[in-house]
Amino acid sequence: MGEPEGKAVSNGLPPLPFQLPYPDSPDVITSNLLKIAELTPNDRKRFLAKNLITHLHQFVRETSLTTKEWEEAIQFLTAVGQTCTPLRQEFILLSDVLGVSALVDALNNPPVQGGTESSVLGPFFTEDSPDLENGDSIASDGKGEYMYVEGRVLSTDGTPIPNATIETWETDGHGFYDTQYSNREKPECRGRLHSDKDGRFGYRAVVPVAYPIPGDGPVGDLLLGMGRHNMRPNHLHLMIEAPGYTKLVTAFYPEGDEWLESDAVFGVKKSLVVKLQEVNDEAEARKRGFPKGNSFKLLQRDIILVPEEKSREVFERNAREAAKNALATA
Amino acid sequence: MGEPEGKAVSNGLPPLPFQLPYPDSPDVITSNLLKIAELTPNDRKRFLAKNLITHLHQFVRETSLTTKEWEEAIQFLTAVGQTCTPLRQEFILLSDVLGVSALVDALNNPPVQGGTESSVLGPFFTEDSPDLENGDSIASDGKGEYMYVEGRVLSTDGTPIPNATIETWETDGHGFYDTQYSNREKPECRGRLHSDKDGRFGYRAVVPVAYPIPGDGPVGDLLLGMGRHNMRPNHLHLMIEAPGYTKLVTAFYPEGDEWLESDAVFGVKKSLVVKLQEVNDEAEARKRGFPKGNSFKLLQRDIILVPEEKSREVFERNAREAAKNALATA
Repeated sequence: MGEPEGKAVSNGLPPLPFQLPYPDSPDVITSNLLKIAELTPNDRKRFLAKNLITHLHQFVRETSLTTKEWEEAIQFLTAVGQTCTPLRQEFILLSDVLGVSALVDALNNPPVQGGTESSVLGPFFTEDSPDLENGDSIASDGKGEYMYVEGRVLSTDGTPIPNATIETWETDGHGFYDTQYSNREKPECRGRLHSDKDGRFGYRAVVPVAYPIPGDGPVGDLLLGMGRHNMRPNHLHLMIEAPGYTKLVTAFYPEGDEWLESDAVFGVKKSLVVKLQEVNDEAEARKRGFPKGNSFKLLQRDIILVPEEKSREVFERNAREAAKNALATA
Repeated sequence: MGEPEGKAVSNGLPPLPFQLPYPDSPDVITSNLLKIAELTPNDRKRFLAKNLITHLHQFVRETSLTTKEWEEAIQFLTAVGQTCTPLRQEFILLSDVLGVSALVDALNNPPVQGGTESSVLGPFFTEDSPDLENGDSIASDGKGEYMYVEGRVLSTDGTPIPNATIETWETDGHGFYDTQYSNREKPECRGRLHSDKDGRFGYRAVVPVAYPIPGDGPVGDLLLGMGRHNMRPNHLHLMIEAPGYTKLVTAFYPEGDEWLESDAVFGVKKSLVVKLQEVNDEAEARKRGFPKGNSFKLLQRDIILVPEEKSREVFERNAREAAKNALATA
């Protein structure tokens, strides 16, 4: 038989520098793993490894996971990995529907002194948004019901922030992002603009529409098995950056959507639910640049950014508190 | 833009049948997930979902997992999934090195009244083992140092079990399984035989050799990052089945191997470590069927199977106890 040749060789690391009992029982298996995790050279990775092992083993032990269930879990995770493509991230979707993405977001972007709250990024942000001026439209005419978005970018102390970069993206009136069309030729329903010298911004868009997260993969099957719908309520994504401030990834959720209180990915916060004003005035519509008709929806909302050092201080204080309550200590 | 057409549609399940608060904080995110998990129709799956969510969220919260670490975890899991092929299961390997496979094995096959203990199946079992008679060899001549394996298959009360099916497989003297050779034409170092009317079995084999688990994928990188070697000590796999008895997947680990106490996949139990006797007697070698030389190693060991109802009773009692201590209750 050919290939491989010679003796099988290890990764070069030695046997353990300490003696462990044989893993003859569940307790010893877990404690051996935790002792071996002590070898992890990086402090933070060591803490993560020990905590992960602790919870993973507790899950298996508390549920007395059967061999068949373990096999099904292996198959499920493999299918999730193999569903991923350059255009589709099924593991992020899994993280989303298990509330992990929302939790990571909530922990990494804690509310600070009246700053605008964050929301999940989602999988539909792209790098190719067109650069726009204030007053321009992110959507071609006919992509949906007219909506005008306007406000100011401010610091938590009320100071206007000029020249903040605002990325914004949304579904069209059918509930699809441009990337979901197979023949996408250019960006649609997305754009990049900047606040003016007084922190003001304004742009034309369309009223976003509720839509399902992908239901044709293993995560879709998981939701069906759990008796859960796969809808997200209508929303407008925004990502705002300005030097010295914490980057804000958020979204505004127009009120009245039937899925608002059961978002499949747990992105809606109460403070991010917005009221769209109905404007019925042909002169106003022309003034805002809408090419026809006499009505549009108006979304008025200021965006409050938090100074970087302030966010970091709150995150680090929270992290220290959380670590105190950890099952596995550092 | 073409395709998809019409409005985006959901998976057909309705909004929640109860009211939840907006997930404005980590606590509310977790409690909303647990309430939604109550919708899972299947009792066992509901218990698993709630327990998984509890531990997954605790891991994220106790470690204050950063957005960057979350992204790295997503990339790692995706790479594990995409490393899997019909011949390679990287998620099982991940489960192995995190001690999860050993734990699932320990919980599902608890020690019962002197029954032979179980060990991990590993990824090298194949369905195409040749059928052999007692006294035959599982290895072609030249595949390694001669070893003779013999014993009886008995019930826990000492009764011999005739006609038990014994599958057995091992590495050759280079530390490779037959499936690791690209030009494998037929099974090698594996076979299937049956105990005789007195429960006796015996076959020729080779002394197995320590070997590394695959180190060229994401799990290999994980072990390097944790400062862990990737070796398994030398061992002979056995899988024994007889009607009315719990199927036993186990392995015998010849003593003296330097990796015995730090098996990368936590498969070694003390009771499975065996002593190989050195036999130096040309007549004995010929009698056992070895074609040349005057020495061989002898592995003598009885295999004790546990009646099915007895195993089930112990598993179910243990599972009830474990559930009592669960963080999330059924």
